[in-house]
Order: sequence, then C-alpha cells, then structure tokens
Amino acid sequence: MKGSLLYEGKAKKVYHVEGKPEQLVLSYKNDATAFNGKKKDQFEGKGRLNNLITSRIFEHLHQQHIPSHFLKSLNDNEQLVQKTTIIPLEVVVRNIAAGSLTRRLAIQEKTVLQPPIIELFYKNDDLDDPLINDDHAKRLANVTEHDLDNIKILALKINEILKRLFKQADLELVDFKLEFGRLHDGNIVLADEISPDTCRLWDAATGEKMDKDVFREDIGDLIATYETILQRLEESICAK
Amino acid sequence: MKGSLLYEGKAKKVYHVEGKPEQLVLSYKNDATAFNGKKKDQFEGKGRLNNLITSRIFEHLHQQHIPSHFLKSLNDNEQLVQKTTIIPLEVVVRNIAAGSLTRRLAIQEKTVLQPPIIELFYKNDDLDDPLINDDHAKRLANVTEHDLDNIKILALKINEILKRLFKQADLELVDFKLEFGRLHDGNIVLADEISPDTCRLWDAATGEKMDKDVFREDIGDLIATYETILQRLEESICAK
Ligand SMILES: Nc1ncnc2c1ncn2[C@@H]1O[C@H](COP(=O)(O)OP(=O)(O)O)[C@@H](O)[C@H]1O
Ligand SMILES: Nc1ncnc2c1ncn2[C@@H]1O[C@H](COP(=O)(O)OP(=O)(O)O)[C@@H](O)[C@H]1O
Ligand SMILES: [Mg+2]
Ligand SMILES: [Mg+2]
Repeated sequence: MKGSLLYEGKAKKVYHVEGKPEQLVLSYKNDATAFNGKKKDQFEGKGRLNNLITSRIFEHLHQQHIPSHFLKSLNDNEQLVQKTTIIPLEVVVRNIAAGSLTRRLAIQEKTVLQPPIIELFYKNDDLDDPLINDDHAKRLANVTEHDLDNIKILALKINEILKRLFKQADLELVDFKLEFGRLHDGNIVLADEISPDTCRLWDAATGEKMDKDVFREDIGDLIATYETILQRLEESICAK
Repeated sequence: MKGSLLYEGKAKKVYHVEGKPEQLVLSYKNDATAFNGKKKDQFEGKGRLNNLITSRIFEHLHQQHIPSHFLKSLNDNEQLVQKTTIIPLEVVVRNIAAGSLTRRLAIQEKTVLQPPIIELFYKNDDLDDPLINDDHAKRLANVTEHDLDNIKILALKINEILKRLFKQADLELVDFKLEFGRLHDGNIVLADEISPDTCRLWDAATGEKMDKDVFREDIGDLIATYETILQRLEESICAK
C-alpha cells in the first residue's frame, strides 16, 4: 500500500500511496529537533506517541466539523491523510504569553492574551521561519486576503475546541502551531500534526511544562511527559 | 513663544508652545543616526534641509486633503505642529524591495511590489523596533482594528500622492516610514517627519541612492544629496 518516499522532514517521512494519488502516509519519526534544527536528539517511542496524540486530536476535530487532511490511523507510527499542497505558513495561536513573544515584544511570560494573538511565520528553514504579516503572506505564500481570513477563522475555532479538550485533560493550552494545505479541489484544510511538539502545554494544577520545552530546556523526561499527555487525552475523550 | 522642552529624540527636539497647550514646536537637529543609534554623526545644515523638505511635503499633502499635525514652517530649523499622542508604530510602505525586506525574506532587491507592502514596527528602541502584525499592534499600541484600517488607508493614499510628487522630481519612492498621532479629539492624523531620513529615494534616471542610505553605507555627500532633493522638490512643486 505504502508507495515511494515523497519527502522527509524533521519529524515525519511522507510517502505516496500506491494507486491513490490523492492520499499520503505520514510516518512519525523518533527525532526531536529544536531551534530550527540546531538542537537534535532521538527518543525511542516518540514517533508512536506523536502519531497517536495527533490521531486522537484530529479525530476529535473531525467530530467538531473542522475540515482536515486526516483519514485514519494506520498503525503505531503511521497515519493516512489526504495529499495537500502545503501553504508555507506556520500559523501560531497564543492564549498565554510564552517563548518568542516574551523575548521579541517584552510581554511578560504568563500574560493572558484575550483575544488570542495569531501570528504567521514563513515556513522557510533557510530564513529561520521569520515572522511575517498578511501582506508578506499574500506575496510569499500564494494566499489571498480571503484565504487568510478563512485560515484565521479556522485557527480560532480550532483553538476553542482544543482549549476545552486540553482543559478536560488538566492541561492549559498556552500556544500552538498549525499548518494548512490545499486539496486538489482548492479547498483549504488543516494539515500536518498537532502534538506536544507543536503545542505549548502546561499542567493546569502545577504549571509544569508538558511539551517540547522539556527537550528545548532539558528539564525532564520527554517520553514520560508525552505518554502522560496521551493517557490524559484518552481518558478525557472516553469520559465524554 | 517657544516654551519648555517636552522631549528630545534622535532627530528632533520637541518644545511646548507658551499659551497654546495643543501645539508643539519641532526643532530639527543636525544629528544623523542609523542602525537604531549604533552609527552616529553630525552634519551642518541637515536640520534645516529636513525641516524644509518635510514642510514642503506636508504642505503638499495638506492640499491633497491628508489630515496631519502640520501647521506651518517657523524658520530654517523649526515648524509648528499640533500636539498629538503618538501611536508607537512605524508604518512602512514599500513600492520596491530594498533593505530589511530583502534580508529577512530573501526578496530580490529592486523587485516591484504591486500592490505595495505595508509593515508595522513597534516603536521601541529597547526592543530594536521589531516588526509586528496587527494583533500585536492592537495589544501594544492602543489601536483598534478600525484605527489600523484607517491608518493603512491613509498610508496608501499618502503613498500615491508622494510617488507622483517624487516622480515629478525625477525620484523613485522606494519605501518610507510614517508615524501617526491622535489629536485631543481622538482623531488620527499623520505626524512626525517625511524627509530623506525616513524615505528611500532613488534617482529615476541613474538609480543612485539619494537618501539616508548615503550615510548608512558611506557612499556620498549627505548634505549635497539632501540639498538636491529640496531643490528638485521645490522645482517640481513650483512647476505645477
Ligand atoms: N496532508 C499533507 N500533504 C502534504 N504534505 C504534508 C501534509 N501534512 C504535512 N505535510 C508536510 O510534511 C512535511 C514533513 O513534516 P515534518 O517532518 O513535520 O516537516 P518539517 O521539517 O517541515 O517540520 C512537512 O513539509 C509538512 O508540511
Ligand atoms: N505632532 C506630534 N506630537 C507629539 N509628538 C510628536 C509629534 N510629531 C513627532 N513627534 C515625536 O517627536 C519625537 C522626536 O522625534 P525624533 O527625534 O524623530 O524621535 P526618534 O528618536 O523617536 O526618531 C518622536 O517621539 C516623535 O514620535
Ligand atoms: Mg513539522
Ligand atoms: Mg524619528
């Protein structure tokens, strides 16, 4: 079923599907990278955890009528998705100030951002994924004003759904990164992954960091942390 | 008439006006600074040239119904303006790719940007005037969505007027920076200066740089260049 390799990124390999030119297999790797690839390591079991967490989240988003590339989980490390032309933007939604926002704009860490702040970064490793505005995006990322409006509305809806989902799992959704792609028919859908690699999650009770910051800052056991996220998500999804 | 010093910036001193709490005197200095103050020098006559150039330009914008702080030129170095509460944004309009845009986003220098690109920078020396988006501006600069829409519409109108004015003076308006302020009644008007310190201008025939880049890159005589800009502007304004 799995065909030839289409491309390999920092976190996933992307394969064609034989006989189904409009589908892809995403295969999650055990690699962890941070600071645009400057820090690297491998964690046995990480690919499985991110695949399962992403699958749970995309299934939940599907039930809430969010259009996405997700078709189904295939096995521990792989999922079947619709092939898209990825829009080269990282769409970041921030509910609480942390990370680069606090450094660039001197907004105090933990400041509640209500309404949430949306940021666009140009997905380009050579340029270190720079922050851009809508005018830049229209020029660089082959999107119209109308596409950007749609993407932002979708991002804010996803934020509301995920905030609630994580809250039930005793996790605060601080910020997260989304990618969108265009299907063959031109429609824009949510693509890529949503995992502790792409979300900032704080334990709701203790404030403890429970995401890739554990790796970025060397402050804990990445696998144990991601395992906790998966368990809590499964319990909170089953409890409903 | 001129009262006490309100504040001193890198390019101008700002004075109160005795008996007129809603007016200010802007006094243009001979200082040149670049790279957020890291490069500095003094040029005899620069204050006069920027005051006269800014005055000509604001008079022209006034005739074209652009609301601004400008009241009148007082003498060689000083002008009378309406006091505003400056909105801490540098509003940059770009017609042709140059400078930081080419470095940050790898857009080739001289690429024509049609429609023009508008950028907002947060006016904050400690943070090195970082590029921001509309969501950041709403949070940091005390502006609403509606204010930002107004500011961008004004900026694009000003661009059209200035492109035409400079074209008549055989100059290409590559990009420029505007500041806006709020009058006592809450209305937003164009403030600050428009001069070769705040515009990128290329000779229409030769492509020669005729603005502060002469100082940034040490490639010519700043005073002679600014003198040429003033002369050409006066000729093109009189010719009408
Ligand atoms: N549905 C999809 N269609 C096409 N490409 C996708 C889809 N979902 C994700 N991708 C892309 O797969 C690539 C591999 O993912 P990843 O390893 O996370 O890459 P990166 O190193 O860019 O973070 C990325 O370019 C991502 O945008
Ligand atoms: N109409 C106005 N009302 C109040 N402040 C103004 C007005 N026009 C300009 N200013 C402010 O005057 C200050 C001095 O100008 P300048 O020397 O160019 O400062 P800077 O070092 O910030 O570039 C700046 O903060 C500018 O925003
Ligand atoms: Mg990725
Ligand atoms: Mg200034």
